[in-house]
Amino acid sequence: MLLGKVKGKIISTRKHEKLVGYKLLIVEPYYGHKKDTFIAADKLGAGIGELVLVARDYAVKSGLDKDAPIDALVVGIVDREPEKK
Amino acid sequence: MLLGKVKGKIISTRKHEKLVGYKLLIVEPYYGHKKDTFIAADKLGAGIGELVLVARDYAVKSGLDKDAPIDALVVGIVDREPEKK
Amino acid sequence: MLLGKVKGKIISTRKHEKLVGYKLLIVEPYYGHKKDTFIAADKLGAGIGELVLVARDYAVKSGLDKDAPIDALVVGIVDREPEKK
Amino acid sequence: MLLGKVKGKIISTRKHEKLVGYKLLIVEPYYGHKKDTFIAADKLGAGIGELVLVARDYAVKSGLDKDAPIDALVVGIVDREPEKK
Amino acid sequence: MLLGKVKGKIISTRKHEKLVGYKLLIVEPYYGHKKDTFIAADKLGAGIGELVLVARDYAVKSGLDKDAPIDALVVGIVDREPEKK
Repeated sequence: MLLGKVKGKIISTRKHEKLVGYKLLIVEPYYGHKKDTFIAADKLGAGIGELVLVARDYAVKSGLDKDAPIDALVVGIVDREPEKK
Repeated sequence: MLLGKVKGKIISTRKHEKLVGYKLLIVEPYYGHKKDTFIAADKLGAGIGELVLVARDYAVKSGLDKDAPIDALVVGIVDREPEKK
Repeated sequence: MLLGKVKGKIISTRKHEKLVGYKLLIVEPYYGHKKDTFIAADKLGAGIGELVLVARDYAVKSGLDKDAPIDALVVGIVDREPEKK
Repeated sequence: MLLGKVKGKIISTRKHEKLVGYKLLIVEPYYGHKKDTFIAADKLGAGIGELVLVARDYAVKSGLDKDAPIDALVVGIVDREPEKK
Repeated sequence: MLLGKVKGKIISTRKHEKLVGYKLLIVEPYYGHKKDTFIAADKLGAGIGELVLVARDYAVKSGLDKDAPIDALVVGIVDREPEKK
């Protein structure tokens, strides 16, 4: 999984019907670069500035209640930021 | 998912039969580099210059009506570009 | 999917039996770097110098007639090279 | 698979229920860069400073006793560090 | 698939039981960078210094006799190194 900081959210009015009901968060990798910022779906209620744990690709399927075209899902909110030693 | 800008489309006359009926868009990552430009299939009708949300790899399967060899699919058109802060 | 230029092919005498019958093309990413050159299986008959559309990972399964350990498959031959604007 | 050094662990109180029971390790790629540090689930009992073998994406499924939204799993602890020649 | 040079192997005494019986090779990408060196399972008998074809992620499943948490598998040994033109 990746650690990432929630930077904001996006709004998409014209979208795949299976995406309705998810928040779509802008997530910047905690260890990586801003250029690798991606979008993750969320149902845990992560807020802007929080550090989240994101599962990607095939693993997302197991975290969803029902099938959706989502390749990155917030699966945890991290209690305390680790040091970047 | 990734955010990307639609830069154009490609035409492929000799292609896998299961790809017939999809538009094949040239998508440049919004946060990333031009060198990571990729091709995404689209049925939402995204136009050149629009910002799209693209699902990749396993997640694509859930977004398709029927099975096709597609690893990147437009699943949303973004209402307003987020800041690149 | 990725766009790539066919640079050559490889020959492998000792290989997994399920790979028999596929041409194994050396493909250089069209937008990316030479260092990301990879090998794609082909049954469409792409020739050296042609620009091809390659599906990767899970999507390959849908493009194969039968199960094989292939993670990149040529699914289209592009009619005309897009500009690299 | 990737080789990585265990650098620490993360605690997530609010997390997906299927993640309960796994240690979540901070893993820095052995050959790669610190910026590619990621989080892997562990049940083998790897300790900080140990070199681990991590399976990712679809392969994780086969290593789990039951379904969970995990995309990186420790599948081995390496006896001796290879040279970085 | 990727082309890679076999640089050595790793020994892991404490490992997932489904990994027993596979050689775990250290593989350096032929076109890429040393930093992207990874570990691939092998049953074809590739030796140090040989150039191998490696399938990754979902495609591995088709190359295995039985289920294992392996995300990179040697599926061919290349007869002759291609030029790096």
